Amino acid sequence: MSTAIFYHAGCPVCMGAEQMLLSSLNQDKFPLDIVHLGEQPQRISDAESAGVKSVPALVLEGQVFHINFGAALADLKS
Amino acid sequence: MSTAIFYHAGCPVCMGAEQMLLSSLNQDKFPLDIVHLGEQPQRISDAESAGVKSVPALVLEGQVFHINFGAALADLKS
Repeated sequence: MSTAIFYHAGCPVCMGAEQMLLSSLNQDKFPLDIVHLGEQPQRISDAESAGVKSVPALVLEGQVFHINFGAALADLKS
Repeated sequence: MSTAIFYHAGCPVCMGAEQMLLSSLNQDKFPLDIVHLGEQPQRISDAESAGVKSVPALVLEGQVFHINFGAALADLKS
């Protein structure tokens, strides 16, 4: 079983991408783990290690896909 | 039945996104229409009308999701 991690920060751009993923992703194959980095800043370093530069972003089997642009990761640290 | 249109231009960034979509999208619900704008420049205006600014991009039920960044649409016209 593969896992898809969706990193977001609660912004409207992120919410749109989240709805898209929830409705379209084959969750039997890729159960979606949704991480709100504003509420879980302790997971920012995981996101960075995975190669995430901005949110919303989807990490699927280790590959990062930045979807549109909501916020830079650096802005979530302050 | 909804349709998902994936616009790309044959670049490596696009190919990565295409593989991700093919493997993860629930195609029973969203059959994927793949459009290579380098080979089908006559469809660039459709893409622009849908709000696509760069490829790769996914248009799902009228909403545009730009995935990573391969090429600006303007560069595909020349």
